[in-house]
Amino acid sequence: MEAAGVPGERGREGGIGENDAAEAAGPDERGCPSHPLPAYGSDFLQLDADAVPVGGKTEWLARLLRRAIADGRLGLGSRLPPTRLLAAELGVSRGVVTEAYRLLTEDGHIAGHRRGGTVVVAAPPAPTSTQPSRPSGAHPSPAKGGPPTPPSLFDGEPGPDVYDVLRTSPAAIDLTPGRPDLTAFPRTAWLRAERAVLAELSAEHLGYGDPRGAPPLRHAVADWLAHSRGFRVEPEEVLIVAGTAQALSLLSPVLRAEGVDAVAVEDPGSLGTRQHLLHGGLATPPVPVDQEGIRVEALRSTGAPAVLLTPAHQYPTGVVTSGGRRRELLRWAAEDGGLILEDDYDAEHRYDRPPVSALRALLTYRVCYMGSVSKLLAPALRTGWMVPPPRYRERLIEAKRFTDLGNAALPQLVLARLMESGGLERHLRMLRRRHRSRRDAMIGALAERLPGAVVHGAAAGLHLTVTYEAEVPDRALAAAALARGVKCHPLSWYRQLPGRPGLVLGYAAVPPGVAAEGVAVLGEALRALGTTS
Amino acid sequence: MEAAGVPGERGREGGIGENDAAEAAGPDERGCPSHPLPAYGSDFLQLDADAVPVGGKTEWLARLLRRAIADGRLGLGSRLPPTRLLAAELGVSRGVVTEAYRLLTEDGHIAGHRRGGTVVVAAPPAPTSTQPSRPSGAHPSPAKGGPPTPPSLFDGEPGPDVYDVLRTSPAAIDLTPGRPDLTAFPRTAWLRAERAVLAELSAEHLGYGDPRGAPPLRHAVADWLAHSRGFRVEPEEVLIVAGTAQALSLLSPVLRAEGVDAVAVEDPGSLGTRQHLLHGGLATPPVPVDQEGIRVEALRSTGAPAVLLTPAHQYPTGVVTSGGRRRELLRWAAEDGGLILEDDYDAEHRYDRPPVSALRALLTYRVCYMGSVSKLLAPALRTGWMVPPPRYRERLIEAKRFTDLGNAALPQLVLARLMESGGLERHLRMLRRRHRSRRDAMIGALAERLPGAVVHGAAAGLHLTVTYEAEVPDRALAAAALARGVKCHPLSWYRQLPGRPGLVLGYAAVPPGVAAEGVAVLGEALRALGTTS
Repeated sequence: MEAAGVPGERGREGGIGENDAAEAAGPDERGCPSHPLPAYGSDFLQLDADAVPVGGKTEWLARLLRRAIADGRLGLGSRLPPTRLLAAELGVSRGVVTEAYRLLTEDGHIAGHRRGGTVVVAAPPAPTSTQPSRPSGAHPSPAKGGPPTPPSLFDGEPGPDVYDVLRTSPAAIDLTPGRPDLTAFPRTAWLRAERAVLAELSAEHLGYGDPRGAPPLRHAVADWLAHSRGFRVEPEEVLIVAGTAQALSLLSPVLRAEGVDAVAVEDPGSLGTRQHLLHGGLATPPVPVDQEGIRVEALRSTGAPAVLLTPAHQYPTGVVTSGGRRRELLRWAAEDGGLILEDDYDAEHRYDRPPVSALRALLTYRVCYMGSVSKLLAPALRTGWMVPPPRYRERLIEAKRFTDLGNAALPQLVLARLMESGGLERHLRMLRRRHRSRRDAMIGALAERLPGAVVHGAAAGLHLTVTYEAEVPDRALAAAALARGVKCHPLSWYRQLPGRPGLVLGYAAVPPGVAAEGVAVLGEALRALGTTS
Repeated sequence: MEAAGVPGERGREGGIGENDAAEAAGPDERGCPSHPLPAYGSDFLQLDADAVPVGGKTEWLARLLRRAIADGRLGLGSRLPPTRLLAAELGVSRGVVTEAYRLLTEDGHIAGHRRGGTVVVAAPPAPTSTQPSRPSGAHPSPAKGGPPTPPSLFDGEPGPDVYDVLRTSPAAIDLTPGRPDLTAFPRTAWLRAERAVLAELSAEHLGYGDPRGAPPLRHAVADWLAHSRGFRVEPEEVLIVAGTAQALSLLSPVLRAEGVDAVAVEDPGSLGTRQHLLHGGLATPPVPVDQEGIRVEALRSTGAPAVLLTPAHQYPTGVVTSGGRRRELLRWAAEDGGLILEDDYDAEHRYDRPPVSALRALLTYRVCYMGSVSKLLAPALRTGWMVPPPRYRERLIEAKRFTDLGNAALPQLVLARLMESGGLERHLRMLRRRHRSRRDAMIGALAERLPGAVVHGAAAGLHLTVTYEAEVPDRALAAAALARGVKCHPLSWYRQLPGRPGLVLGYAAVPPGVAAEGVAVLGEALRALGTTS
């Protein structure tokens, strides 16, 4: 009954959805009968007896049979050869064939019937090669080389996958911001640290771990914060997360549960973090940034109970929040009970003098501190940390547990070792020197190739923000640049409020010569558009 | 004004919450004046001029000053020594002191006033040593050694942190299930693969990556599934995630958005996955499991639109879903439009014969397949994969992006190499041999020490489920065992429906002798409770 029932019912699957219908119909389309027909011997296996392996005959035969069924060489309802016959043809013992049939019967592929022999009752899907319809899926990774950029990339508001699309768009020169010099990644030091970690590792470290993060890394981060960010916390207060992106996705529901419906953001400010807040169900009212940092009276007037800040080096303008503005922020936090989400994303990258300490150093209970190694080592490490206000800690730990049971252990232990051995500090000093010279080279190129442009935030970071006077929309400029083989971000991606057009240009990850070349292309593109507009 | 304003307002912070009040009051409690007082020279720094470093004087002095303010040695409102005086006492140039003061002014710690000199206007928090109140936080990781288990561990329904609490409870013998032999982790092969990966790695692999996972790993997983799980998919169809826990947390909102409000679960069945579904806002109606697998008519009668299954080796009973039951499930999926979440958690650990192929091999559009390396290599790697029905793919990719922007790249590339080099296959063969002998040893010990007990699911996996007739509740037994230094799971943790008491005992991660010892302790505990009850 089942043998007849299953194919029949699969034929009815059209009702579930076209895909299923197509899948069910597949074998027939491939010209295979959906009513029983005898299969003759092992021809359908398309092999000769010489191909039979010495060991694992049963698995081998079962795999061949599954493939034959998947391919449609053995269509739904078709009959398998008698075990004795197939065994003889393949020169294997009959037991091998019987066992292989038993495996497929257990799989549910075939069913035995006293009179009808053994029949195919359900086919595994043939390998599909579906192309996802949306951009994020439609753009394979750089490793596979990307298709041409869709014209839509710089039209309208950027979607959540805009960075994926841009990243996988082919271009000769990549001036997108946010990456340190990745060729400088300390491979040797990392491998040495990993060897040491693996040598000392106890089995328990390889089991399910502490959702808060590996204790050695929480210790190392606490030391790091005390030494380079100006505040001291207990390792117990540190939560290891998969970067600031995850920190925000963990925070959003916790904040919403507290009645927080909006997190004010700097304008201009990071598009990525804003998208994360929006995805988390939080409004992101914009607050203008001036030469001293975010305008606190404007923040107050939004009525937002929380704000996301990059105080050490505002992203993307590079403004360092002034002491007076910091005190205004603290007053806002204290008097209005406001919450500050401090994204300390690249404070360590200062060229002129030591970085200012974190806001968290001034107020424990109103600041949720977030940092990561994305700008210190590599974004691909997906490792960061939070120091939340105590009242949020337990809920964030629970959110982290349910998100992924905690970060992977090995990279945490390796990173802890790099931090405590001073290896990370050394790497950072080297990076600063290199980034500084790359910054200077780009500033020089900008002066030469984009004379009208104003450069912002040169004192720190991995990128420059450039504004220009021309009547050329920056998305058109970025699109024209990409068409000429240069990737960069239009400043308007960072804006919710109207403002001058501009570009955000990363210099850290590209050699000076290449950056200069890229800037030259930007100049050409701007002139070309300026004359046509 | 600000100088006076800030301390005053901090004094009012009591209104925000005791913590803030305590923080603000801190300095006073430490006997520091909250009204301006002159500080005399550098005494408050508690150092002599010999301590002055040769380089980095400014940073060094700023750090000392911050610490003095944090400690309360320089209380709110107290005045810093004139730069000239401090410079002289420390034997540094006056510029060093001026610059250090400027840094603290920018931090917002101090403010200069023509007449009043330079005054402390905001103190960084002194290092706190708060102990979180809830268990998950209250139990430090094994590395720090755990406090005694709270009596509550085995009372009432287990909470989300029950595994953390149990893991960090001290015990001589750990028979908790779910871990392979972690001492066997292929450290050398892993390090060799990592060296090769780091040698070939291009900078772009260290940047922000594909949220779907590194292409090499998606290829390797597709090959692995075709070779050992009986179905073939395109790498494009594979989504790399941080284990099954994350797979479920990504799926839950997608399912809810489709109107799925419940996911039926096997009973007995995994507590962890059930907790994840509940946390994801999904009901988990229980469906009994018999000798052939889940009872499909009972599944149908729950009316649940989806079910979470472990078909290859039911967790924890070890039942292998029969071919007939598989076809019933497919009919349910086809006729009722049901969705099957297939948790293929340890199919590769069969001792008697090759594993049955995955349900996904039979139906593409109604099965969301999930696998991981937690049982193949180590849970601490937090690496797994999903092959979702095509219609969910894009939404899951977006959910993954917003959760963490994708798994970390290095471990993905290392794992891909291990899979493609055959290293993982070799490791697995070795594990199977070792696990098999450990299983046999535990079965022997059970026969000898728990004569009444019935052993389930010995044909595969990393654990045994044992049921017994005695009138002893299994949580009481597990608690008594833990008190005697043996960790295991009570079977009732896995049940929503009434059923016989039992224990779930992991044998893979402990040497045979230790397991036998543990079983002996269980026997004593059972007899002791049996006589007292």
